[in-house]
Amino acid sequence: MHNALNQSISPPSRADCEQLDQSDPLAHWREAFELPDGVIYLDGNSLGPLPRTTRERVLKCVSDEWGRDLIKSWNTAGWMDLPAKVGAEIATLIGARADEVVVADSTSVNLFKVLSAAVKMRPDRRVILSEKGNFPTDLYIAQGLTDLLDAGHELKLVEREEIPAAIDASVAVVMLTQVDYRTGSRLNMKEITSLAHEVNAVAIWDLAHSAGAIPVDLNNANADFAVGCGYKYLNGGPGAPAFLFVASRHADSFTQPLSGWMGHKKPFEFGTDYEPATGVARYLCGSPPVLSMVALDSGVQVMTKAVIGHGMDAIHAKACRLADIFLDRLLAEDNPFGLTRLTPHDVHERGSQASLSLPDGDQAYAVVQALIAEGIIGDFRAPNIMRFGFAPLYLSHLEVYDAAEKLLQIMRDETWRQDRFLTRQAVT
Amino acid sequence: MHNALNQSISPPSRADCEQLDQSDPLAHWREAFELPDGVIYLDGNSLGPLPRTTRERVLKCVSDEWGRDLIKSWNTAGWMDLPAKVGAEIATLIGARADEVVVADSTSVNLFKVLSAAVKMRPDRRVILSEKGNFPTDLYIAQGLTDLLDAGHELKLVEREEIPAAIDASVAVVMLTQVDYRTGSRLNMKEITSLAHEVNAVAIWDLAHSAGAIPVDLNNANADFAVGCGYKYLNGGPGAPAFLFVASRHADSFTQPLSGWMGHKKPFEFGTDYEPATGVARYLCGSPPVLSMVALDSGVQVMTKAVIGHGMDAIHAKACRLADIFLDRLLAEDNPFGLTRLTPHDVHERGSQASLSLPDGDQAYAVVQALIAEGIIGDFRAPNIMRFGFAPLYLSHLEVYDAAEKLLQIMRDETWRQDRFLTRQAVT
Repeated sequence: MHNALNQSISPPSRADCEQLDQSDPLAHWREAFELPDGVIYLDGNSLGPLPRTTRERVLKCVSDEWGRDLIKSWNTAGWMDLPAKVGAEIATLIGARADEVVVADSTSVNLFKVLSAAVKMRPDRRVILSEKGNFPTDLYIAQGLTDLLDAGHELKLVEREEIPAAIDASVAVVMLTQVDYRTGSRLNMKEITSLAHEVNAVAIWDLAHSAGAIPVDLNNANADFAVGCGYKYLNGGPGAPAFLFVASRHADSFTQPLSGWMGHKKPFEFGTDYEPATGVARYLCGSPPVLSMVALDSGVQVMTKAVIGHGMDAIHAKACRLADIFLDRLLAEDNPFGLTRLTPHDVHERGSQASLSLPDGDQAYAVVQALIAEGIIGDFRAPNIMRFGFAPLYLSHLEVYDAAEKLLQIMRDETWRQDRFLTRQAVT
Repeated sequence: MHNALNQSISPPSRADCEQLDQSDPLAHWREAFELPDGVIYLDGNSLGPLPRTTRERVLKCVSDEWGRDLIKSWNTAGWMDLPAKVGAEIATLIGARADEVVVADSTSVNLFKVLSAAVKMRPDRRVILSEKGNFPTDLYIAQGLTDLLDAGHELKLVEREEIPAAIDASVAVVMLTQVDYRTGSRLNMKEITSLAHEVNAVAIWDLAHSAGAIPVDLNNANADFAVGCGYKYLNGGPGAPAFLFVASRHADSFTQPLSGWMGHKKPFEFGTDYEPATGVARYLCGSPPVLSMVALDSGVQVMTKAVIGHGMDAIHAKACRLADIFLDRLLAEDNPFGLTRLTPHDVHERGSQASLSLPDGDQAYAVVQALIAEGIIGDFRAPNIMRFGFAPLYLSHLEVYDAAEKLLQIMRDETWRQDRFLTRQAVT
């Protein structure tokens, strides 16, 4: 029990979980979210649930700011300031200065912006280094940029364990996602950034599965650029705008190919020539989608308040404890189903999710569908991974115990063999 | 009176306007919008007002789709299909096929995508031709792209009347905004596109002030690419996502530098290599901001229904009549204030706005502020332009008459000379 922060010796019982819930200082944060009855939501790593404050915030934006005050609200309701305001809030979650972060566009678009800048900072080099298992859209964006530039850049992909050795003086940019979206395994941001800087390469970090999930300290790691997602652990709503970090030492010296009017120094003078705004504000492009921005603002505020109250270490520690209760329960017996734990044990080497594989991908897919039919929402990732997010602000130890029990029951009873579970559909 | 569609002979009286309202077949569309009491809203060309259906639609998305159904809604609520669905709706307003339009990102980001593709389609040419008065963000995006490519491309800017003569065999891309954002003057899309094609150049049209405002027929004009805005005449809400058109003859042959996962052929297989989706869907990048997307969907549906009922010609004709009542009233007397009409008279040469200049820019700015203080919302555009939008679905002839009277009164009484009106603030 007391080793639950790392590897458990013997998995806790249902009664143990009830006790853990009673003494859980984070338990009351569940009230900050609206979750449907009968659902155990283990997919907050894909789409965070609705914060209780968000409906009112969005309604106010629709009715009062847009409906009543109309165009004035760009100033009076602070719409113009949302990218910087919400960026400053997110900065507190990722070890950045308030003026180093803005919210804009999508993670993919933001990655294009910072990767363009990073490549231009090393004009004599042609290698963008990443890992084969990086989130695909990150690799696609790099491919899109190298194709567009048509200047001989190479996207070099190596296995995860080969990354340190592959960082050499040919590398212009090291572009990595800190927490692996399939396994929940975490790279050492500080160590890899340091290796990159030793050879004068630029380090870009994707924090999609980090921000709001684990303690992140971009400036302590000396990161150059970072991007991340608003709709996972920041609970910003479906397709919420993304964020972007630029280290202040690069402020005013980086480029912006998506040089729209919002990133202009004097956007309301409507001059013919682009003149970049000071600092990270130059990374803004077009008008922000305000309804989605205020929802993100509301979600981020829940997270920043929780972090002020408890610290990100404690929040992440509970996530790991939840994930371990789940995983240990599944793997405690003689494991007749061939389940394999993919998520590391050490809290410093993992995100907030628990991932398992099954030998048969179709089975893994069907088990996840059978769980969803029982109200336990996780997701499947090709080829054979069952993925469960453990957002600690709204999940209880008991829920996690029950979810594991249900999964074991589905395996034992072979409920997953039904056609309705085996038939593949597009899922996010 | 009966010449109001073109230039009026004698401006209608207030009683005439009341009569025009009584016989106006579009008058009942005002019920489709929520407009605050005491406001005459002449800024729908900058931010369209709140459609009455939108609050419920957004609430449903927040409460039921996000709050209750969570991640499932990407499929069950059709979130995944929103870019194509709303794109198909917009297609009906711009003379495009349903599968030639998607909604994504911002106008600026979309322009970057199509301009990148267009430039790559003419690898042996280096000139992007536009006009000096094009909307600045369009010029900034072209500058951002040419800087990024660093391949000797030139953004060549000419005066409006010099455009035809400047289209020669050195031009790779002709990139223009159909309706001028300051004056409301309209370019001949078909003629200019034809000139571009004669020299084998690619034609890109920005429809920011066209879509939902005037009859647009992209395919009749043989346009190659187009982009446009969701928050003006489409009433999609502040910062609503933008749209993008690619002529079907280019489908599958254009590039996409912002190659995110949503534009992948098989986004859920999470493969390492980018493989573009078929057709315009490849122009999607990251996840769409769903709350803003459903608001746009709701706004666009109001417009498509109105167009089905009345035709875009009739809708635009009312806009011109409203603008002319306003302008003729202001210019009917001996015009002691030096007001100059900037908007053309011919309905085929104009958008849905009315623009006037004053000799003194500070005065023009202050008059607009004094009008806003009276509840008449227009906007100022540097250096000396007063700009008023005449969205015909929610404006009455009487309102327009009264707005003109109020402007004249502010000029006569010199109310605008107050410090609170003269002090410049950032306005959108």
